[in-house]
Amino acid sequence: MVLKLYLDMLSQPGRALYIFLKVTKTPFEACAVSLLKGEHLSKKYEQECSKFKKLPVIHHDDFRLTESVGILRYIAREFPIEDHWYPKNSQKQALVDEYLEWHHSNIRQTCLDFFRNQWIIPLRTGKEPSAEESARHKKNMLRSLKDFERLFLSDMPFIHGNEISFSDLQAACEIEQPRFAGYDPRRDFPKIKVWIENVRQECNPYYDEAHQYLYDEAEKRITQ
Amino acid sequence: MVLKLYLDMLSQPGRALYIFLKVTKTPFEACAVSLLKGEHLSKKYEQECSKFKKLPVIHHDDFRLTESVGILRYIAREFPIEDHWYPKNSQKQALVDEYLEWHHSNIRQTCLDFFRNQWIIPLRTGKEPSAEESARHKKNMLRSLKDFERLFLSDMPFIHGNEISFSDLQAACEIEQPRFAGYDPRRDFPKIKVWIENVRQECNPYYDEAHQYLYDEAEKRITQ
Repeated sequence: MVLKLYLDMLSQPGRALYIFLKVTKTPFEACAVSLLKGEHLSKKYEQECSKFKKLPVIHHDDFRLTESVGILRYIAREFPIEDHWYPKNSQKQALVDEYLEWHHSNIRQTCLDFFRNQWIIPLRTGKEPSAEESARHKKNMLRSLKDFERLFLSDMPFIHGNEISFSDLQAACEIEQPRFAGYDPRRDFPKIKVWIENVRQECNPYYDEAHQYLYDEAEKRITQ
Repeated sequence: MVLKLYLDMLSQPGRALYIFLKVTKTPFEACAVSLLKGEHLSKKYEQECSKFKKLPVIHHDDFRLTESVGILRYIAREFPIEDHWYPKNSQKQALVDEYLEWHHSNIRQTCLDFFRNQWIIPLRTGKEPSAEESARHKKNMLRSLKDFERLFLSDMPFIHGNEISFSDLQAACEIEQPRFAGYDPRRDFPKIKVWIENVRQECNPYYDEAHQYLYDEAEKRITQ
């Protein structure tokens, strides 16, 4: 069965899945779809790729699946993935699930809102965001990052201990995203700084490859 | 091993888990924690129940777990739950996961935002919400409900076909919530009206039992 991953490296969960498939040596075909060009909103994409009109999505022969966390679980069942990424032990798996579910309404929501307000909307409208809106989004994001440090990071290298899991990858790819808008969480959160470097090292060269566009954009914002 | 569920019937995912455990005849002890009194924010709750300071949470002897979707998956592994609630077949399970992950940033986020703005904040502050904020939250919620009908409801009785799954219960308990604030989605969404009645019938008497407080509050808003 052929596995195809439709993604844009601009998208956090798309990068997480790309890195995961590469680092676990899972055979797949990457299919680029441009979010900025709105290719995911076309009738063609809806009919041929995903009724959700979202990314990332996989096709596993005739089976179509959206939502990165659901995709991760499906891949962990269908392919020979090393156990630490998504453990088969019931309690260990439950703790990875606990992070992945918490992620949506916390790190995902607040970092995405900040990024959208500071980067996507100005790019589309040509207008700078209002100071009030920027401050509100930044405050929410900082609260989430603080909760993330308190609840999930310790003196262990990764969220769930000595070995990396999909929780780390999903979180790291999201926490990189605010750099598009010139804010690097490493600056204010020392535990995040150490942990995100652990994730990067564990997943290179694919981590840097997937983040190259983001690194270039972050560089522009800092030198401007 | 003893299973304890800490919950408040005011909370959508708390109700979903309560109904699920009751209807599947899973032995458990329900422990009431009051969100309105802020009992989940106390030092005692943090130390003895959950470091997340959130509901619902389970204790399975010494094992603590938060996040309702993670809890569902753990219970489906640990107890003899009928397969249709969370199927073991890989592709069927993936489609339940797809809904449960999509839920967070769509139905969950928008119905909760509307409910919080219209019911929780006025209750805490004594001030009515601004017309502008109310309109914004309502617009987002209606968009999500429309997407929900388009993407997940068909002429089948439940989201994934002829049998109920945890997707139906998670979605229904959230879509009931705006009634606290006087808005009933059944009014504008005919497919939701039929489907939510299917879920209710399938899960009664526990569905009505868990929603009694909400029904009483909805009644007050309508007659005021």
